[in-house]
Amino acid sequence: MQGTTGTSSQPTGTYPPTDRTVPTRSPERAAYDKELVHAILDEGYVCHLGFVRDGAPVVLPTLYGRVGERLYVHGSTGSRPLRMTGAADPGLPVCLTVTHVDALVLARSAFHHSINYRSVVVHGTAYEVTDPEERRTALDALVEHVVPGRSHDSRPANKKELAATAVIRLDLNEVSAKLRTGGVNDEPEDLSLPHWAGLVPLRKGYDAPVADPALAPGTALPDYLSAG
Amino acid sequence: MQGTTGTSSQPTGTYPPTDRTVPTRSPERAAYDKELVHAILDEGYVCHLGFVRDGAPVVLPTLYGRVGERLYVHGSTGSRPLRMTGAADPGLPVCLTVTHVDALVLARSAFHHSINYRSVVVHGTAYEVTDPEERRTALDALVEHVVPGRSHDSRPANKKELAATAVIRLDLNEVSAKLRTGGVNDEPEDLSLPHWAGLVPLRKGYDAPVADPALAPGTALPDYLSAG
Repeated sequence: MQGTTGTSSQPTGTYPPTDRTVPTRSPERAAYDKELVHAILDEGYVCHLGFVRDGAPVVLPTLYGRVGERLYVHGSTGSRPLRMTGAADPGLPVCLTVTHVDALVLARSAFHHSINYRSVVVHGTAYEVTDPEERRTALDALVEHVVPGRSHDSRPANKKELAATAVIRLDLNEVSAKLRTGGVNDEPEDLSLPHWAGLVPLRKGYDAPVADPALAPGTALPDYLSAG
Repeated sequence: MQGTTGTSSQPTGTYPPTDRTVPTRSPERAAYDKELVHAILDEGYVCHLGFVRDGAPVVLPTLYGRVGERLYVHGSTGSRPLRMTGAADPGLPVCLTVTHVDALVLARSAFHHSINYRSVVVHGTAYEVTDPEERRTALDALVEHVVPGRSHDSRPANKKELAATAVIRLDLNEVSAKLRTGGVNDEPEDLSLPHWAGLVPLRKGYDAPVADPALAPGTALPDYLSAG
């Protein structure tokens, strides 16, 4: 059900590497391809948003949406990170990270145990979105990110709900993906050890939808869910 | 295959709430029960570790392990966050967050779309572990965290591997869990709307293990994997 958000125009090119987006080790795992970055972002539900409060780091899980080269996060106007991005402010430095765990990698040696994963790290400054049209676009993108097609099959936010919702924007400029794929990387001299080695893939996908008990009579499961 | 790490002694009690661990909104979703926190931590593979570098936040996904009231993270001695926790330093302020997404919550209103999730946020200071015995315990816990039973069925790290590995410790003192469970919370006046509403649970578990092609002849799939 994922993957269609914001992909109406095909991205081309790469994000320019910076000091912050080039890892000091395993640089071969880093990637800057926009299409790959978008695909990893679109597959996730929750990002981990980091910011600095009173000099200390804070990392909170939150929903997000993507529209082209912009990410949007929303929340209550009363929540702490969103209060820190007021339009009058210079913006809030953030680091937004999305990670998928694909498989456990069991090596013969403890040292080479690992996981196959795909992650995206975005560095930048988050700004509050105040333009009503951009706020609508962002809120639609947040719902579409959870289930593509859903923003047209739900009641849009009313004035009171809009007033209670803060939206912040983070542009995709300083961005990198990092991936581990493939099999076990044991030392040659360990290959004959009697320990089982290989991958344990994590199961992906959805279980059967569970309808709300108070569903209006005759409401069918929508196509965009039955295909999941 | 998860959930047995470090649970040999049953925890009792709660973590004392602090200004940083009491949310400004939805406080009813916050919890401080040690047993619940441990269960959420033990179910995850990857944490998101936040720290401050040059005044800006950095959030990186990384493996972790738990031993009682201590979390351990490891990495190359050359990696940036681990270089920042040298034994001679006063420690690195960090925020370590673990999140599980359990279900998509589709409400009749866009505003009440949500996810069911369980997360743990740990605030504190990370210190490099230099004591050889604690390092061994930590590295075993990291492997056990991925697959319980595995640390006894793999070649332990040798001197060269140990010298290349930095281990950092974060004590569980300032800790909170946050959860959303249950069904859809629509406004009463929206219940008759013709939109499908309910939960879409995310599938959990593992697909069949994929053996390394170079497995030593006669190496069977271990019991701790076939039960997964």
